[in-house]
Amino acid sequence: MSKPAKELVNELIVANHILFDQKIVDAFGHISVRHDKDPNRYLMSRHLAPGLVTADDIVTFDLESVPHPDIGKRYYSERFLHGEIYKVRPDVVSVIHCHAPPLLPFGVTKAQLQPIYHMSAFLGTGVPTFEIREKGGMTNMLIRTPELGKALAEKLADKNVIMMRGHGATMVGPSIKAAVYRAIYSVQNAQIQLEAMRLGEVTYLAPEEAELYEKYSGEVMARPWALWEAEIKEQR
Amino acid sequence: MSKPAKELVNELIVANHILFDQKIVDAFGHISVRHDKDPNRYLMSRHLAPGLVTADDIVTFDLESVPHPDIGKRYYSERFLHGEIYKVRPDVVSVIHCHAPPLLPFGVTKAQLQPIYHMSAFLGTGVPTFEIREKGGMTNMLIRTPELGKALAEKLADKNVIMMRGHGATMVGPSIKAAVYRAIYSVQNAQIQLEAMRLGEVTYLAPEEAELYEKYSGEVMARPWALWEAEIKEQR
Amino acid sequence: MSKPAKELVNELIVANHILFDQKIVDAFGHISVRHDKDPNRYLMSRHLAPGLVTADDIVTFDLESVPHPDIGKRYYSERFLHGEIYKVRPDVVSVIHCHAPPLLPFGVTKAQLQPIYHMSAFLGTGVPTFEIREKGGMTNMLIRTPELGKALAEKLADKNVIMMRGHGATMVGPSIKAAVYRAIYSVQNAQIQLEAMRLGEVTYLAPEEAELYEKYSGEVMARPWALWEAEIKEQR
Amino acid sequence: MSKPAKELVNELIVANHILFDQKIVDAFGHISVRHDKDPNRYLMSRHLAPGLVTADDIVTFDLESVPHPDIGKRYYSERFLHGEIYKVRPDVVSVIHCHAPPLLPFGVTKAQLQPIYHMSAFLGTGVPTFEIREKGGMTNMLIRTPELGKALAEKLADKNVIMMRGHGATMVGPSIKAAVYRAIYSVQNAQIQLEAMRLGEVTYLAPEEAELYEKYSGEVMARPWALWEAEIKEQR
Repeated sequence: MSKPAKELVNELIVANHILFDQKIVDAFGHISVRHDKDPNRYLMSRHLAPGLVTADDIVTFDLESVPHPDIGKRYYSERFLHGEIYKVRPDVVSVIHCHAPPLLPFGVTKAQLQPIYHMSAFLGTGVPTFEIREKGGMTNMLIRTPELGKALAEKLADKNVIMMRGHGATMVGPSIKAAVYRAIYSVQNAQIQLEAMRLGEVTYLAPEEAELYEKYSGEVMARPWALWEAEIKEQR
Repeated sequence: MSKPAKELVNELIVANHILFDQKIVDAFGHISVRHDKDPNRYLMSRHLAPGLVTADDIVTFDLESVPHPDIGKRYYSERFLHGEIYKVRPDVVSVIHCHAPPLLPFGVTKAQLQPIYHMSAFLGTGVPTFEIREKGGMTNMLIRTPELGKALAEKLADKNVIMMRGHGATMVGPSIKAAVYRAIYSVQNAQIQLEAMRLGEVTYLAPEEAELYEKYSGEVMARPWALWEAEIKEQR
Repeated sequence: MSKPAKELVNELIVANHILFDQKIVDAFGHISVRHDKDPNRYLMSRHLAPGLVTADDIVTFDLESVPHPDIGKRYYSERFLHGEIYKVRPDVVSVIHCHAPPLLPFGVTKAQLQPIYHMSAFLGTGVPTFEIREKGGMTNMLIRTPELGKALAEKLADKNVIMMRGHGATMVGPSIKAAVYRAIYSVQNAQIQLEAMRLGEVTYLAPEEAELYEKYSGEVMARPWALWEAEIKEQR
Repeated sequence: MSKPAKELVNELIVANHILFDQKIVDAFGHISVRHDKDPNRYLMSRHLAPGLVTADDIVTFDLESVPHPDIGKRYYSERFLHGEIYKVRPDVVSVIHCHAPPLLPFGVTKAQLQPIYHMSAFLGTGVPTFEIREKGGMTNMLIRTPELGKALAEKLADKNVIMMRGHGATMVGPSIKAAVYRAIYSVQNAQIQLEAMRLGEVTYLAPEEAELYEKYSGEVMARPWALWEAEIKEQR
């Protein structure tokens, strides 16, 4: 089995720290990346707060979310949501799961997260809500089995972001940078939308506007990453 | 009289600093822990802002909230709420009292704090509100007597969290880590719930969902604590 | 003319820094203290952001708000509000003027700031609103003359806090520590009240509850000050 | 071609860092200043997060937003909004474009940003909203052509601040300090107004009050700048 590129592992560690620094995750939540040498594997930290992750904590999982090798540590109980999404979404290179507070209201009410500005144009294709009761009945809310992971991946379908009722949200992207960008601007969008909705009718981006910006957005992905990375370095 | 374990005293000091760092307490509020060698005693700081507590400030109290020994300093005037809860709740190992702003609205209106996500499943058994006027009539709002402490403990009954009208909240747990976790996620839940309630009807965790997560939650208590402890160390 | 005690000047400087650190003032706003040797004089910084004040910036003013000596620098244009309050309120030892955002809504709407918890019991005697148009007609909103200062002092009457429409707020106290405490907990109260009012009817402290806590509050004034002072020292 | 004064370049760099530190811009947004030797040129950073800008990144553009010299780097795609405003507004010396979250609700609803206190008296002449669809139909929302820049400048007319639907805001001033001041207090005003509007009818500054303060405001522009500059230096 080929080892992942050192740069990819490093980018995953930086992403963990950025997500914590930007308040997308607290002690809970996780980010994974598809293995650059083997599309049937992915990399993710062992069970640990993202802000504390180092190179020694990165583990390789197959798409059944079994670790190779098993380093004898505890793993995130919800790793199945990562594996099951990678199985059905060959376009996805990185998956983030979080409980960021501004997103939660959109999973427990009928309000829909919608793109309020160009920065969150990736929301323009829709944001479904996963109701775990549909598949699992009464549960402890966690995606702790391949079956629940599969149900989540099905509900996500071809979208970029999904709300999880009474739990949090999951976002995917074609790169670590894109997934982190989507997590950060989903939260930003949620904060703005919560305020805007109280002022009366809101004009969201038209689907065509969102689509046009999305085509362009890849061009500016490096600019915020450079800043977010500089910010975590300042703290060390 | 046996001395408490050094580890327990240290954990109590760390908890004081975490509660301040996480904005659960400001200069006011306090945390206690039951003595590990004597269930009829508890440990708590003398009258001091939690963020400034050191080992020299930890005092042992009996369940009448009398210090042993009296170190000749001033003590928290509301220590009776700790003593009276320990008397009637043998399962409780740690008690926190705070005035965290997001919790206050739930004590002065008819709105009920309810579990909006798995992280605050401990709210699923209900959150009573203590109205000091019922027992004390017109007071200065403080739990400054054993009688008022007893009335609060009675209202708390077998719950984990209680709101105090025009004052703050009190939370209990089977360990320092659990009590701190409950304080932090009560506040998080309050912030999310305040936003969600404005969007229309809210789906809270079903009692069964809350119960299922609560059974599991002990397994993840060490993860946030490691992060919170790292955060206070960074600041020193 | 006797010099003020060094301790008083130092406390005034610390208060300036605390007010900035606690976000009560930004570059604007000011705090003064009555001269300890001459009740007809008061001390305040020259025209400067409170967060930058040092001992060299403290100036002595008479109650007409004329500097003695004039150090040849610019002074706060609104110093008259300080002088005029000291004239008619012999009980007042310190005056703070600020534009803290959470207070502003209570000066431009019919909503009244009311004590939502014991920490802000000092609001229990009422919070009047100063409408500058009543005395000054169309102005630039500033209290730039003795006449406007006098009108503000009259509206304040025997209260502790006053809102100023389209401008900010002013609070007074029997010591620097008390005035700073009132500024900080007025803002805290405003934040909590803004949230609580959206949940339906709010139970505020009864006048008697507020009065009972106010009698007691002097006993706990040193505790938050010790923390706030420690926090500004950490930053240096 | 004459070089710009070193002091001006330095002030522009400081302004970039202040705007980031005060959360007016994140990785996106930009500030420009008219060339002090040539009114038909302006200075702005190359494509970079404002918080990371250094002297080497400052580029000179003509009013067609063509760089002189072209340093072979990427430039902000929206630089045309700067050039087109300088063309028609000889009074404008500095232009800021940002996506500050509190401003966004005022661009996507019928709510109008209005001066809630003297600090934002510059809003008193009105805040128009730019609807890009009027000129551009379905776009990616960006001001990426001289035509769109011209349309924005026309909508801005003689005002100080303009909202951009689904995008952000732009503010102008007679100096860098004034433009930065307007950006910061536009955001502050938005935050306060969002809260005040929920409490019922709001009394905004009368046009005459706003005008009277605006005449005076130049006198206090140096005070906040000194503080903001001190704050960014502390972080280094």
